[in-house]
Amino acid sequence: MPQSNLEIDIYEQPEALRRLLTDERANIEKIAAAIHERDPKFITLAARGSSDNAGRYAKYLFGAANGLIVALATPSLYTHYDQPPRMDGTLAIAISQSGQSPDIVSVIKEGRRQGGPTVGITNDTRSPLAQEAEHVIDMCALRERSIGATKTYTTSLMSIAMLSTALIQNKAQADERWRMLEQVPELVTQVLANAEATIKAAERYRYMRVCVVVSRGYNYATVFENALKLKELTYTLADPYSYPDFQHGPIAVIEDGFPVIAHVPQGPIMHEMIAFLRDVRERGAELIVISAEPEALAMAQTPLPVPADMPEWLSPIVNIIQGQLFTLGLVRAKRFDPDKPRGLMKVTMTQ
Amino acid sequence: MPQSNLEIDIYEQPEALRRLLTDERANIEKIAAAIHERDPKFITLAARGSSDNAGRYAKYLFGAANGLIVALATPSLYTHYDQPPRMDGTLAIAISQSGQSPDIVSVIKEGRRQGGPTVGITNDTRSPLAQEAEHVIDMCALRERSIGATKTYTTSLMSIAMLSTALIQNKAQADERWRMLEQVPELVTQVLANAEATIKAAERYRYMRVCVVVSRGYNYATVFENALKLKELTYTLADPYSYPDFQHGPIAVIEDGFPVIAHVPQGPIMHEMIAFLRDVRERGAELIVISAEPEALAMAQTPLPVPADMPEWLSPIVNIIQGQLFTLGLVRAKRFDPDKPRGLMKVTMTQ
Repeated sequence: MPQSNLEIDIYEQPEALRRLLTDERANIEKIAAAIHERDPKFITLAARGSSDNAGRYAKYLFGAANGLIVALATPSLYTHYDQPPRMDGTLAIAISQSGQSPDIVSVIKEGRRQGGPTVGITNDTRSPLAQEAEHVIDMCALRERSIGATKTYTTSLMSIAMLSTALIQNKAQADERWRMLEQVPELVTQVLANAEATIKAAERYRYMRVCVVVSRGYNYATVFENALKLKELTYTLADPYSYPDFQHGPIAVIEDGFPVIAHVPQGPIMHEMIAFLRDVRERGAELIVISAEPEALAMAQTPLPVPADMPEWLSPIVNIIQGQLFTLGLVRAKRFDPDKPRGLMKVTMTQ
Repeated sequence: MPQSNLEIDIYEQPEALRRLLTDERANIEKIAAAIHERDPKFITLAARGSSDNAGRYAKYLFGAANGLIVALATPSLYTHYDQPPRMDGTLAIAISQSGQSPDIVSVIKEGRRQGGPTVGITNDTRSPLAQEAEHVIDMCALRERSIGATKTYTTSLMSIAMLSTALIQNKAQADERWRMLEQVPELVTQVLANAEATIKAAERYRYMRVCVVVSRGYNYATVFENALKLKELTYTLADPYSYPDFQHGPIAVIEDGFPVIAHVPQGPIMHEMIAFLRDVRERGAELIVISAEPEALAMAQTPLPVPADMPEWLSPIVNIIQGQLFTLGLVRAKRFDPDKPRGLMKVTMTQ
């Protein structure tokens, strides 16, 4: 069987991440120095689809590592209502693999018009986004063949992680984090080495129509991206949540056999999240658990392991690989064409 | 048949909104004056569940009317990761009907510790949130009987709209908006007067298991709240979207008969949204349309009208009433108990 474009993209991720780390570090450090001089008070981030999920990662990472609050932008205020908010004191960041979507570009245009620093993160350095942004980060993913984003998602996360690291003033701390970043391609390779087990495990969910995907903190991004992949490529109604949001109402949907996909990173949320999973299992949920923690994996009907002892802030880049592989397995089990998702195009030109 | 608590709460909304407008205006104007003196650069907003949906409304309203960017908070950075971001220059707002949830209160505590202005919007003025916040807005909803929030949701929206209006410096413009606000209880009454038609219309969806709810702009909040009510009370997997986000991938889930609930406000997004609905109808979607616009209503299998010529910024308070009534109708059609949603409690104590 020839490899699908989706698989080719998935397997190219270690290489793409390595290229980004090598080729863009100097540029990103220069951008960070320029941003630092402007002393932004907060960040406004514009993106859609998978890029918006990368934005969710940015909220936690810039908040925790750089003390910067991130507001996800409201593009329609710029494009439709013609009432863009004041952007003084803000660093505007836009993420778009194609760099084409006019509504996303409009936020950067306005940020620049108001005089603030602007960064475009894109896989096309000749795109409108790259032309409008003061600073440009190249995702270095080269051509993404598949309509469902995979390597442009993980390189978006890595771009954000590199920018966050470059913005850290304490040199020893920054150096330590650069060393951690360098390990990510190898961690991704380790997950890909067991791809067949995940693809096989997905078969059990051949007739799954709905599910929820839950985590919290850094992996809030992962649940949105995991759910989006399932929707785009397997047409499963997959609903993403942080577990506290899920507890505030939606938990009512759980009934016997209801599938819950849980990303359980090692770190401060782990024990509470395991208690949450115990609760949903008692309500009858079927658990698919992506984790390095034996206790969490042991609770699952379908355990999908990831390497142990990762720094939690980097786990989203590694955990989503299992989400991609599970989606790929489900696409095969349901006998859909991974390269022709129903009614999608690679570039979506929303205003 | 005795009225359920859910119905009692729904029908009390005009009265609750009127009480809020009368009893809290002076307090809110005083709070706005105090905030104005501190000249915040942006807003950080913490909330969960229905209150988080009210926060989505705040993002558009404070952005458009007050030029203030709103960042939804990341409570886990405060409670679990112990890395709260810098909050200088920010106005911190928390919304919680019970005022109990420790993670939400922690954001306000930290905002106050860092010296910024803080506002708690709550239905319990003796709650921990009310005690921690520098300024308190009372939702004036009195006791909410039902577990699913209805009147505390619309009074949260109204509280935000009143605070936004009070923050407008131009007196003529503010006065004009206060006059518009005064009309809202009557608009809600008009929708409630036709409640039976909506409740009856919901019967067609007796066997609906999944759906999406879409809009954009101010009513981005409405789709999240409408979807949440459906999940909490009818266990329908209802997925909320802005239509551009829906186009960036999830549109692939549409197949013949797939139900799409659309809120189509009159205003700048209307024509584009009607074009979007034409597209999903061609893909086989069944449309449930909440709108005042004849063209949008005519496209629907199930048209649910709202009063014409509302200012769009107030439409979320009126549109959600149709969402509540549709949910109530579906609860009845599916023969669930509206007052005993599976596994929910009124107060959820997430950390």
